[in-house]
Amino acid sequence: MSILISGGTVVNSTGRSQADVLIDGEKIVAVLPPGAKTLGVDLAASVDQVVDATGKYVVPGGIDAHTHMEMPFGGTFASDTFATGTTAAAWGGTTSIVDFVVQYPDQNILEQYQAWHDKAAGQCAIDYGFHQILSDVQDSSLTAMDELIAEGVTSFKLFMAYKGVFLSDDGQILRAFQKGADNGALMMMHAENGSVIDTLVQQSLAAGNTSPYYHGVTRPWQAEAEATNRAILLADLAGAPLYIVHVSAKQAVDYIATARDQGQNVFGETCPQYLYLSLEEQLGAVSEQWGDFEGAKWVCSTPLRARAEGHQDHMWQALRTNDLQLVSTDHCPFCMADQKELGIGDFAKIPNGIGSVEHRMDLMYQGVVTGEISLERWVEICSVTPARMFGMHGQKGVIAPGADGDVVVYDPNGHTSIGLSKTHHMNMDYSAWEGFEIDGHVDTVISRGSVVVADGEFRGRLGHGRYIKRGLSQYLI
Amino acid sequence: MSILISGGTVVNSTGRSQADVLIDGEKIVAVLPPGAKTLGVDLAASVDQVVDATGKYVVPGGIDAHTHMEMPFGGTFASDTFATGTTAAAWGGTTSIVDFVVQYPDQNILEQYQAWHDKAAGQCAIDYGFHQILSDVQDSSLTAMDELIAEGVTSFKLFMAYKGVFLSDDGQILRAFQKGADNGALMMMHAENGSVIDTLVQQSLAAGNTSPYYHGVTRPWQAEAEATNRAILLADLAGAPLYIVHVSAKQAVDYIATARDQGQNVFGETCPQYLYLSLEEQLGAVSEQWGDFEGAKWVCSTPLRARAEGHQDHMWQALRTNDLQLVSTDHCPFCMADQKELGIGDFAKIPNGIGSVEHRMDLMYQGVVTGEISLERWVEICSVTPARMFGMHGQKGVIAPGADGDVVVYDPNGHTSIGLSKTHHMNMDYSAWEGFEIDGHVDTVISRGSVVVADGEFRGRLGHGRYIKRGLSQYLI
Amino acid sequence: MSILISGGTVVNSTGRSQADVLIDGEKIVAVLPPGAKTLGVDLAASVDQVVDATGKYVVPGGIDAHTHMEMPFGGTFASDTFATGTTAAAWGGTTSIVDFVVQYPDQNILEQYQAWHDKAAGQCAIDYGFHQILSDVQDSSLTAMDELIAEGVTSFKLFMAYKGVFLSDDGQILRAFQKGADNGALMMMHAENGSVIDTLVQQSLAAGNTSPYYHGVTRPWQAEAEATNRAILLADLAGAPLYIVHVSAKQAVDYIATARDQGQNVFGETCPQYLYLSLEEQLGAVSEQWGDFEGAKWVCSTPLRARAEGHQDHMWQALRTNDLQLVSTDHCPFCMADQKELGIGDFAKIPNGIGSVEHRMDLMYQGVVTGEISLERWVEICSVTPARMFGMHGQKGVIAPGADGDVVVYDPNGHTSIGLSKTHHMNMDYSAWEGFEIDGHVDTVISRGSVVVADGEFRGRLGHGRYIKRGLSQYLI
Amino acid sequence: MSILISGGTVVNSTGRSQADVLIDGEKIVAVLPPGAKTLGVDLAASVDQVVDATGKYVVPGGIDAHTHMEMPFGGTFASDTFATGTTAAAWGGTTSIVDFVVQYPDQNILEQYQAWHDKAAGQCAIDYGFHQILSDVQDSSLTAMDELIAEGVTSFKLFMAYKGVFLSDDGQILRAFQKGADNGALMMMHAENGSVIDTLVQQSLAAGNTSPYYHGVTRPWQAEAEATNRAILLADLAGAPLYIVHVSAKQAVDYIATARDQGQNVFGETCPQYLYLSLEEQLGAVSEQWGDFEGAKWVCSTPLRARAEGHQDHMWQALRTNDLQLVSTDHCPFCMADQKELGIGDFAKIPNGIGSVEHRMDLMYQGVVTGEISLERWVEICSVTPARMFGMHGQKGVIAPGADGDVVVYDPNGHTSIGLSKTHHMNMDYSAWEGFEIDGHVDTVISRGSVVVADGEFRGRLGHGRYIKRGLSQYLI
Repeated sequence: MSILISGGTVVNSTGRSQADVLIDGEKIVAVLPPGAKTLGVDLAASVDQVVDATGKYVVPGGIDAHTHMEMPFGGTFASDTFATGTTAAAWGGTTSIVDFVVQYPDQNILEQYQAWHDKAAGQCAIDYGFHQILSDVQDSSLTAMDELIAEGVTSFKLFMAYKGVFLSDDGQILRAFQKGADNGALMMMHAENGSVIDTLVQQSLAAGNTSPYYHGVTRPWQAEAEATNRAILLADLAGAPLYIVHVSAKQAVDYIATARDQGQNVFGETCPQYLYLSLEEQLGAVSEQWGDFEGAKWVCSTPLRARAEGHQDHMWQALRTNDLQLVSTDHCPFCMADQKELGIGDFAKIPNGIGSVEHRMDLMYQGVVTGEISLERWVEICSVTPARMFGMHGQKGVIAPGADGDVVVYDPNGHTSIGLSKTHHMNMDYSAWEGFEIDGHVDTVISRGSVVVADGEFRGRLGHGRYIKRGLSQYLI
Repeated sequence: MSILISGGTVVNSTGRSQADVLIDGEKIVAVLPPGAKTLGVDLAASVDQVVDATGKYVVPGGIDAHTHMEMPFGGTFASDTFATGTTAAAWGGTTSIVDFVVQYPDQNILEQYQAWHDKAAGQCAIDYGFHQILSDVQDSSLTAMDELIAEGVTSFKLFMAYKGVFLSDDGQILRAFQKGADNGALMMMHAENGSVIDTLVQQSLAAGNTSPYYHGVTRPWQAEAEATNRAILLADLAGAPLYIVHVSAKQAVDYIATARDQGQNVFGETCPQYLYLSLEEQLGAVSEQWGDFEGAKWVCSTPLRARAEGHQDHMWQALRTNDLQLVSTDHCPFCMADQKELGIGDFAKIPNGIGSVEHRMDLMYQGVVTGEISLERWVEICSVTPARMFGMHGQKGVIAPGADGDVVVYDPNGHTSIGLSKTHHMNMDYSAWEGFEIDGHVDTVISRGSVVVADGEFRGRLGHGRYIKRGLSQYLI
Repeated sequence: MSILISGGTVVNSTGRSQADVLIDGEKIVAVLPPGAKTLGVDLAASVDQVVDATGKYVVPGGIDAHTHMEMPFGGTFASDTFATGTTAAAWGGTTSIVDFVVQYPDQNILEQYQAWHDKAAGQCAIDYGFHQILSDVQDSSLTAMDELIAEGVTSFKLFMAYKGVFLSDDGQILRAFQKGADNGALMMMHAENGSVIDTLVQQSLAAGNTSPYYHGVTRPWQAEAEATNRAILLADLAGAPLYIVHVSAKQAVDYIATARDQGQNVFGETCPQYLYLSLEEQLGAVSEQWGDFEGAKWVCSTPLRARAEGHQDHMWQALRTNDLQLVSTDHCPFCMADQKELGIGDFAKIPNGIGSVEHRMDLMYQGVVTGEISLERWVEICSVTPARMFGMHGQKGVIAPGADGDVVVYDPNGHTSIGLSKTHHMNMDYSAWEGFEIDGHVDTVISRGSVVVADGEFRGRLGHGRYIKRGLSQYLI
Repeated sequence: MSILISGGTVVNSTGRSQADVLIDGEKIVAVLPPGAKTLGVDLAASVDQVVDATGKYVVPGGIDAHTHMEMPFGGTFASDTFATGTTAAAWGGTTSIVDFVVQYPDQNILEQYQAWHDKAAGQCAIDYGFHQILSDVQDSSLTAMDELIAEGVTSFKLFMAYKGVFLSDDGQILRAFQKGADNGALMMMHAENGSVIDTLVQQSLAAGNTSPYYHGVTRPWQAEAEATNRAILLADLAGAPLYIVHVSAKQAVDYIATARDQGQNVFGETCPQYLYLSLEEQLGAVSEQWGDFEGAKWVCSTPLRARAEGHQDHMWQALRTNDLQLVSTDHCPFCMADQKELGIGDFAKIPNGIGSVEHRMDLMYQGVVTGEISLERWVEICSVTPARMFGMHGQKGVIAPGADGDVVVYDPNGHTSIGLSKTHHMNMDYSAWEGFEIDGHVDTVISRGSVVVADGEFRGRLGHGRYIKRGLSQYLI
């Protein structure tokens, strides 16, 4: 099977050019001048399929480096399976995800890793890799890190919150970081001070403040900023590279920026919700169906932050200045029915998470339209840098010979209306993005040489997606 | 004429891949899988020439964005003509330069621009563009900026030093910046406080401190840092993008970094001399021939700085952290005989400048060898970013279909000894880099589809080089 | 003549105590327990006069370290003479001023110094010292600095604005700073970039923007912040202590704070107008009499700044954090009639200045009432630190034996309404502070042992005030 | 009993003056002109005693705000009792201490408070106050804070290290801080990350690195800096004033300075050991008696830090810039015999602490001699600010009528040799300061009107010292 993507503008992180892209089998095999009968061959006539990209952008397929499919959490499971989640991702121009294998305390890491393979195998519409969550840092976990790196799991996430579930204490974090410094793994951190948050939650509930809005109130920016700085200093002490997930507080960005200015390998991602949504909107969210529990739709951690404090603007700025390097979704969907509603009367029982895997490329493209970021930066934060950060570049995140044929044709003249009854294919009974309008459209999505979305139809298949055996981070300085 | 660069590792700023590069005429027409009979065609057999890049890096030709060929200065002229300078550049893997058209006070900018064209036309071995120096900011100069932009001169340099020769006062700088904010030009700045320096020079000479070492002593870091910050605030006030040339003081970097963290379009280049050489070495430079006037070989402005203060390490760090974005040479060669020796007994009369256009790619590659920067960052700071910064990307600075066939094959297993009798082709009677050893070698240099250096021979010709009509900067956020 | 101030709360910069203060002749001779028959002597019976300070604060007399009496400027003279100005100062609890001797270019410093003595001699109601303005830095001026120090003029002010009138270029500033580093003088700086301002003024007038509001618009914060940082780096280069006058931009404060954190002897004063008044209010100032020229009443330099940008709050904070060390008035009054109105149709011709010498102690006390500063800090910034900063401590600024009998009894239960027809004694036909209400009142003012204000009457006399021969700054670290 | 201190130079934090000080009973009753027959009375003749201070400094008695007399720790007790410790303090010119009441987990705070009173009552040579250590933050502890404030214990210390002994988790810290924000208490913090330290200690011991030097190695600056920043953000969240004890890492100072620049009530003390001693010296400490266990003499927490990293210079700078506000000793003496030697073969078992209560005034005066601080700053950091910080100003820390007669006559022409056999009166079998030479001498010490040290003799008595009932901090902004 060969495909010629013809007539488009190929965009990478440093520029753009008019070029055709030839895919043969699963791989990109050539980038060529537009329309020419290259090398005396009439390519358009000789390939199996021509994708007309005239007037459109041709970009490396999106890489969402932070998803939680079927994640067991809070007594339930994230509502997207690998099947529904990766299908939704494909719809939205994302051709790779990196999902988190969960270790809870006392669980065996390698068994968990195998269990995640079992869940994903044969179920994915697009390619997938794994990070590993470490919730029980002890000798066996550290040894398992080496084995997982050999398996292509080269990034490991720790938590400074969720005591008794995920939280590692600082000594454990240090030990894991020392291991990362030794074996080259990228250490990821959920940076929120759990002890502070637990205390504030308890006080809030005791005071009768139980609605979803108080989820945000009880996770103040200080809790995030403090933990971010703590993680940075522990990483400095150990000599490990550090990646802070879902940064939402501007003060946390400032700590990251300072460390980066000093040459430390510290990185940060943010998510669409921290760029677009706010605590004030959560406070104002009241519906006929849910009352003020409507706000539960946006209960995620780190939480939405106060727009009046300038966090959202600061996140956009940090994306421009490269103080934050990429945008993931932290896709962790829960339905309102049966899931979010577990927290009626007690926001602490609301499963934390927002589903966005389908909309990331669109939402970030809207930042290009509004002038927040350049077209090249869009490609960089959504695809190029995720690939580099997580050791996939060359195979993923680039349009070059030898790379996987993961390509998105994006139409800047198209339009996308987001909402439950519109572009939504995630397994959720609501959309956190209801009503968002995008001045662009995912036109065609190709995964490893196969067209998986085109003409408004899903043409992929579960099981097409293959495990990505990742190398060490290619983004370190 | 078609060339296949075969078997090499193509490196760009985000990664590398095994790929062949096909050049047809003056353009790159395809990037292809290595060695394959692509599209059923045996390329190696069908092209005019095959360049074997096995085991070597294939990188976009170097772009030196700061040269001064035949520059009239200090009563003499920089010793390299466009002919000798661009030939030396080609030897060193640089396939484009951006040279400075000089306006002295009372000179007509457009006439000067034409004069520079006249000097360069038919003389260049590689392609060349122009920046414009503004030394007389008045209405006619500002109007001329618009005309020059239409001509492809999109960057304009001002000076905060050299009173009576180049210096603009702050009001003039502001006016020029306002114009840049309006027409999109990139404003470049020589940021040193000339008034302070003139005073210190006068005091030094009066005290009998006349040797070349005092050139550095009388241009202290405060003079550079102060001016850098001043330029940044004036650019902020006007809303113009700003590019600081030849940054050498760590405190100047800090001001740049702070402005960049806040999202301002401020950029900085450094030069090899600020990475490798120091004031201490200048102090210690004594030779049989020249006595302590030996130090004149390294009289340049900004000056070499004290290694004990950590400037050199800080420059490398800033290159890693992208607080400085690229490396140019500020190539401004003067011979010791008849030129530098004008300043015997009075360092202030030594023509300022160091010649490095031939060695930049090698010197910076050595930073890869020593672990200061990554291979990808080498390509980025030497080629990709210069192209983006100065509006050439797409045509220059990238290996992609449609781009000019400017390619360097660099051999990491080769070796280069620098010195007057060794790799030196610049028109200088000494080398500022005498004795530097590089663990790599420029193997083959191709300029717009023509091999200009290969097998240790220069195969280009004067007049091959063509004027580059540049667009606006592609690096703004 | 002996006075016992009895029953009050003596306040200094570190605390307060219940104590009586005994003045004998011109000096404080004892601080004693309240009301006691100390040492077996019934003081109240034996002194010439008892001032009942029960329920009131007893504080060292205010020191206004920045006044311009009768200053020749803009073709006119500041409207307060030493006679009217020092009388008004006394009314407001200020018992010492430090006024500026002006040197214009080509004027002889020592002659000017003598001329100021001539103007002040026999005219002052309170004590007075002099700073010297240097507008013509050349060898003779630098030599004169040594002579003036011997005369008790130990602080020297330079200007970075007012080209052709006051402005020194950076080389001149450096030379003066070098002299200050050598002889211990405190170097004072009007830190605004004159060249930038002149350009903006010209552009504003050319655009027809001629009303007083544009005075502020054409002196943007960048012009102050830039110059402040420039002065700091020049002082660092020279090794001189530096004092920035009338700081109004928060960014300027930040540069000062950074230098201070690093241990540099850099200081800053602000003025009541930068704490209370704003550019927005100037924009809104329209009266029947003056139309929008009403705004001329608040034309001063540095200018009032935009409240929306947070400058005023930042000044208060900086007073709390000691990033600014004291408050002076920059008292430079001009009447609307004949003086300010010179600038109708051209704001650049409005004489710059606001008159506040009478209200400083009250205005700053109101900051105690509103919780911006503590009572001790009020005493510190208005009296103790001015004395230390300018080499008068021991004689002035402290209630201790041997100090001059300069004491203010301040009534926290009194009230002061400010305005032309109210507390105003300055020679101005308007008040910049019309309508300000103070929850406190200057009750009694004693200058060198003489009661000069009491019972709502002025009891002093011109000629009582004596020249203060100051020592070097006592505030350096 | 009345005393006239005659002929000396009275020094306070803002200046100095020639004055006599009259003490009557326990109080200072007057500050008078030197030598005069004030008010017609020949004081020298009428008082009970004249202390001749000619040529000497007369300063408020030293206040050591951080001591641990008889502290139970590590299975033993600090070797100074209140009797020996306060006597040694008196010898060294310290007339007040604030000692720490210890609460270990499960202990009742109020019972502990009473126990400390019982230990001190009748035993002290000088006055003493108490801070309270909270090791078990729960409802009853928080309630007890209010009661203790009424008792004059207005500052409460928490620990981020020593798990199972002192450590509070972040939620507990937050709760205590919330209480402090509410009742005005000053919250004190031992800021080191205990979890990190415990891990490093375990690793060090496991690696066979057991000598005292590794105490410092396993408490890296990151552990202190991190905890300091964490405490600052928790205090910001709660709104409580915060005081960091024994700051030794320059990076910790930077966090404090940043918070202070932003107007937060954050304070820091350092101790003589962090100004003078270093990790390198501890590494080099080898003796015939103790071998490399000699280093145990300087095992304290926070630890001595590497001089090569610049911490000591930074502490002096911070004292000058007021980024650190005062100097205490953290006096916590242990003998080598039976106590320190518990840790032979395992540095973690060495009781932590250094004894300095006797030498603080001398050691800090030496900083005046060497030009690190001014004479006034010496008085400020040793006496004035401790009094203000801990709510004693007016009674202590000032020479003014109504204040306690706590006065030290310090002889700048005297000399003090420190060492076990020299000035040492502490109950220790070694001196951490052996061999230090001071160019000054404590001449006479007066405590509440009684001469306790004079003519090289101790003339005080146990039981003279009285409990100081402190008020809330007088240093808040």
